[in-house]
Amino acid sequence: MITTDILIIGAGPTGLFAVFEAGLLKLKCHIIDALPQIGGQLSELYPKKPIFDIPGYPSVLAGDLVHNLMEQIKQFQPGFTLNEKAETIQKLEDGTFIVTTNKGTEHHAKAVAIAGGLGSFEPRKPIIEGIEFYEDKGVEYFVKDPELFRNKRIVIAGGGDSALDWSIFLSDVASEVTLVHRRNEFRGALDSVEKVQELKHQGKIRLVTPAEVTGIRGDEHVEELDLEIDGAHTAIKTDYFIPLFGLTPKLGAIANWGLEIEKNAIKVNNALDYQTNIEGIYAIGDINTYPGKLKLILCGFHEATLMCQSVFNKVNPGKKYVLKYTTVSGVDGFDGTRKEAEKQVVKAID
Amino acid sequence: MITTDILIIGAGPTGLFAVFEAGLLKLKCHIIDALPQIGGQLSELYPKKPIFDIPGYPSVLAGDLVHNLMEQIKQFQPGFTLNEKAETIQKLEDGTFIVTTNKGTEHHAKAVAIAGGLGSFEPRKPIIEGIEFYEDKGVEYFVKDPELFRNKRIVIAGGGDSALDWSIFLSDVASEVTLVHRRNEFRGALDSVEKVQELKHQGKIRLVTPAEVTGIRGDEHVEELDLEIDGAHTAIKTDYFIPLFGLTPKLGAIANWGLEIEKNAIKVNNALDYQTNIEGIYAIGDINTYPGKLKLILCGFHEATLMCQSVFNKVNPGKKYVLKYTTVSGVDGFDGTRKEAEKQVVKAID
Repeated sequence: MITTDILIIGAGPTGLFAVFEAGLLKLKCHIIDALPQIGGQLSELYPKKPIFDIPGYPSVLAGDLVHNLMEQIKQFQPGFTLNEKAETIQKLEDGTFIVTTNKGTEHHAKAVAIAGGLGSFEPRKPIIEGIEFYEDKGVEYFVKDPELFRNKRIVIAGGGDSALDWSIFLSDVASEVTLVHRRNEFRGALDSVEKVQELKHQGKIRLVTPAEVTGIRGDEHVEELDLEIDGAHTAIKTDYFIPLFGLTPKLGAIANWGLEIEKNAIKVNNALDYQTNIEGIYAIGDINTYPGKLKLILCGFHEATLMCQSVFNKVNPGKKYVLKYTTVSGVDGFDGTRKEAEKQVVKAID
Repeated sequence: MITTDILIIGAGPTGLFAVFEAGLLKLKCHIIDALPQIGGQLSELYPKKPIFDIPGYPSVLAGDLVHNLMEQIKQFQPGFTLNEKAETIQKLEDGTFIVTTNKGTEHHAKAVAIAGGLGSFEPRKPIIEGIEFYEDKGVEYFVKDPELFRNKRIVIAGGGDSALDWSIFLSDVASEVTLVHRRNEFRGALDSVEKVQELKHQGKIRLVTPAEVTGIRGDEHVEELDLEIDGAHTAIKTDYFIPLFGLTPKLGAIANWGLEIEKNAIKVNNALDYQTNIEGIYAIGDINTYPGKLKLILCGFHEATLMCQSVFNKVNPGKKYVLKYTTVSGVDGFDGTRKEAEKQVVKAID
């Protein structure tokens, strides 16, 4: 059983920054995320894109912002349960919570902060008979670990950035890369499209368009796919089938936790601390809603901060909190580090 | 008469960032500040100190944050009325406002956002008979323009960072620098104290301690000061007297605008848009208060953003606002510039 003070669900920018504010208050955090990496949408959807509305950054690449946030919080040593989905929650008699993931990992926490962005990203699955049987047996909706495909034959399906970028990357890893797309046109960054074209000419990527995968065969693992190419039917031997048709955010199991939901978002009390209708469960960032709500990263930062204050008051009843500025007080990491401004001296001049 | 959409009072980080969020909504801003430079406390009190709790910055010098915010907002061409204090406000029949400064500058705006931090910084004045007569006639509480002291004799009084740092800086500008302090010990950054010591030994700064300035003389301008040095009395000829005894934040004239004030802060409705009890007047950043309020820069950023939304709805009644992410939509500056993420292409691969 993993124990922590604040269990954060969602490793996007809001969830990550919450670790920092909690750390200033000496509260430990652990983060669960359904994706295999941290950063939420920023890492999954647009790591190379600039964001222009982070205060103090005229422009910052989404991936760099995630990197900087990790740098900012590392001294508070957050724990991570990645690639697992928060599934059930149980409130104990003492007001603490046990949250269990889809893989059975249990987390015990004094408070829970849902920072789930638009929800957990579920892959859009192609409609192919029997595809569920092959999931984790050759059908992969995410590239979690490229090494899985080392010297294997793979078929990637899709026409967007993910399909293009993974085809490029895996052309150096897999023994054979086939990219299948139902149109002749691809939609992505210009340099990605051009790179795929180049790799096609070099024979490192086989392009099959306009085509669709219509069937999967294999005993215990994917062995062969049926293809419909411009009306004609054929089959192709492969070890892996990777459909990259995009992700749809879904509230998922959290929708059944008894929280007040409005238009796919969790209602919170913005007049105080972004707590939900269940005491001890908070919702911060894009996943919450309240009058005047804006789904902006900078708003998530503020909400995370007020949430941490509220948890501090809850776990330290009667203890008076005195706000100290980091410029004045410095920052003490859980790892023994200390960051502080240069101290003043009192010194006679002779 | 200066006209604008949102008149912001206070050029600290919250006020500056409001210009950006307003700009995204095509609202123009003008900023009034009592200090001669922008940045508020960050520039006036600790430009060289690191801040550790700006989201996405493991550490940033206060002065650099101000610089970055200016870089972020310049495309929205804010106007500035610096070195003047907002003094009176008049609400017109159409719901707009006229704000007049202590120097008589008039500003007409659709909405007013008070982002005044802890208030306007008033210098602590030494108790010397008749000192008021010499204000702006040789007595200066701020160094607004160092060139004023070019080749002049100056006496600086004080024992903190400002007194030390300006003595150092002006030792290259003035013909004669005398630093008077009532103790032998100075309180400041170690390198400042050491630098003053060095300049003293070079004869570029004359140090008089423990001493106090007790009198001022001169016909139409400061000509001579009385000094009490360790009990003894003497006089010193000078062109300027610069007492740097620190600043005290004061709400000042804003306290008489009819706003609900609680413990020196302005009450706002945090459940929606940080509006005060007077419709069209908002208070954002350290100067406001509401249940759960934290005086943090990152909270000011959030409050500024929601304030701009509220003003947008007020000046564009019935117009539906659709939030667009800067990553997707880019940023169009008022100066014709455009910042945007690299566009996707739709392209066939042959």
